[in-house]
Amino acid sequence: MDKQLLLTPGPTPVPVEIQNEMAKPIIHHRTPQYQKIFSDVNESLKKIFKTQNTVLTFTSSGTGAMEASVINTLSKGDTAIVIRGGKFGERFAEICQAYGVNTVPIDIEWGTSPDPKVVKDVLNKNKNAKALFMNLCETSTATVYDVKSIGEIVKNTEAVLVVDVISGLGSDDFRMDEWRVDVAVGGSQKGLMIPPGLAFSAVSKKAWDLCDKSNLPKFYFSFKKYKKSLEENDVPFTPAITLEIGLKMAISMIEKEGVDASIARHRSDAEYVRKEMKKLGLDVYSKAPSDAVTAVKVPQGMDGSLLVKTLKSKGVTFAGGQGSLKGKIIRIAHMGGINRKDLEYALEVLKETLKELK
Amino acid sequence: MDKQLLLTPGPTPVPVEIQNEMAKPIIHHRTPQYQKIFSDVNESLKKIFKTQNTVLTFTSSGTGAMEASVINTLSKGDTAIVIRGGKFGERFAEICQAYGVNTVPIDIEWGTSPDPKVVKDVLNKNKNAKALFMNLCETSTATVYDVKSIGEIVKNTEAVLVVDVISGLGSDDFRMDEWRVDVAVGGSQKGLMIPPGLAFSAVSKKAWDLCDKSNLPKFYFSFKKYKKSLEENDVPFTPAITLEIGLKMAISMIEKEGVDASIARHRSDAEYVRKEMKKLGLDVYSKAPSDAVTAVKVPQGMDGSLLVKTLKSKGVTFAGGQGSLKGKIIRIAHMGGINRKDLEYALEVLKETLKELK
Repeated sequence: MDKQLLLTPGPTPVPVEIQNEMAKPIIHHRTPQYQKIFSDVNESLKKIFKTQNTVLTFTSSGTGAMEASVINTLSKGDTAIVIRGGKFGERFAEICQAYGVNTVPIDIEWGTSPDPKVVKDVLNKNKNAKALFMNLCETSTATVYDVKSIGEIVKNTEAVLVVDVISGLGSDDFRMDEWRVDVAVGGSQKGLMIPPGLAFSAVSKKAWDLCDKSNLPKFYFSFKKYKKSLEENDVPFTPAITLEIGLKMAISMIEKEGVDASIARHRSDAEYVRKEMKKLGLDVYSKAPSDAVTAVKVPQGMDGSLLVKTLKSKGVTFAGGQGSLKGKIIRIAHMGGINRKDLEYALEVLKETLKELK
Repeated sequence: MDKQLLLTPGPTPVPVEIQNEMAKPIIHHRTPQYQKIFSDVNESLKKIFKTQNTVLTFTSSGTGAMEASVINTLSKGDTAIVIRGGKFGERFAEICQAYGVNTVPIDIEWGTSPDPKVVKDVLNKNKNAKALFMNLCETSTATVYDVKSIGEIVKNTEAVLVVDVISGLGSDDFRMDEWRVDVAVGGSQKGLMIPPGLAFSAVSKKAWDLCDKSNLPKFYFSFKKYKKSLEENDVPFTPAITLEIGLKMAISMIEKEGVDASIARHRSDAEYVRKEMKKLGLDVYSKAPSDAVTAVKVPQGMDGSLLVKTLKSKGVTFAGGQGSLKGKIIRIAHMGGINRKDLEYALEVLKETLKELK
């Protein structure tokens, strides 16, 4: 028996009604039936991103849409500022560098949120910057960044604000338009509760203007190709049909609960997890903890990898740390289809296991 | 009731046992359980591609892997020869052009196969060509190209032979190593019987050598990233887990039948369809018809779009023509999970519908 309660920050458990919906006979994508699903999903995604902007859907991992946000807005030799406070901030910088973009990093201590004053200062010193890249939730440190305050600063510059909301969307508070975000990059296997394979880019007017000037080479991830197809309620390339069908049901579940109610529930679940961790004597790693995922420090002297392994042998999958945090933290996701009952059970198992390994 | 018999050249019907397998609770990709599936699939894919080369798997539409085959082998300003005999040959040229590759097209009449002598001549005149791009089955015209003969020519040059086998793989005869193909590009939603969302690139030693020199920018589709991860039985980015799980079952079904037996069955089904078309008085469009899909000319005076629409209203989905062939041909796929019984039924409905529309 290898049934696992999956509490990893992506993929998250897929509710059974979504699994069943995706298991129905496949339909063709150039049909009115699919077009209806596609257009419904596109409209609903706007509500989840809290935007009036067009949301483009790619068949790819989230990283594909991160790359798309670089290559569609920038040109070779452009300057971009990247906030690096974990693995996914680093990824934005690596993508920029791969395309010959002059990258100005703002390196912050892992587990902390960037100081808006520092961001303002760097923007002032780099008035030629065309974009600022950051995460909403830096998944590797389970830290939420203050996108709102940074949006207030970036809006007054020439730069566009690009935010990776892959792990935060649907769990951490996010308001694309109100916070003046220009490109928001999402993924399917986190708060949206479906398997990995779809990625999203919501694109503002300011960002589209930059797209018109962008000369970085692109084809599959060309925003313009997807936008042009979207005008005919179509896609430029064969889409991941079953995932889109699953997404329609996932979104209808979120809408039934209410987008804001769902965010509030995630906050409450996150607070519950943080409180329980304190009771267990575990320190929350992040100084600005996300409502999508909680990272806690592994007790001194305990082997973090063994802890994750032992938990798994008991049917509960947590994520360990990545990069320099390997073996030092465990991460407990409370996003998407993960509910309070799952968390209660998992924390019971964690408590028991911590005792055993002491 | 909108149940459709789907006879389109992708997506093809997903066998119910694969649907059910993919509907099981999702697992995490950084686990021994997933790694086993991934490594089994990778080994089996080699048998289907008939190669000893590494096969890389991307989460994307087939076009993503087509783009990958360009950007990983070439450098800016390189010369590439592209055989253009339909929509997907054109796509290779468009991708090359998007990346500043000097593109030498070999334009052939749609529905015909390229003449190896012409190919040899063009290669002779373009000794600096780094790659030749072609299709196995040009899906838009349902034409199979003589990859074997062209492989015999290209192997003696500096150029690599890149073949889009997206719609042909598993249906048309294809032997990567024997035919000296350097990059073969596949997709999931055709002969491999699973939904769209996975794409493949099998890469030869000659192509890897070119990859070492390639300076076109890339990140998500970097062959090297996937190869490096593969050495640890891993993937660089979160993969489309459920599709990979479905693929494992699909491949086990193909292996149970036997890869060669399956190809032979497709040939037999294709011959059956072509024979029946003749009986119905319909001309096969292609002069080198594929065993994956058959295109037939719509009878003179009949509206091809109406024909497809009427067939659909009766529960049988055929594809129409694309580009300049719109309304002029219909395409009947006999790939993947489509069996003789499906074809018999569909051709019965076609016969009846042709009478009605006369």
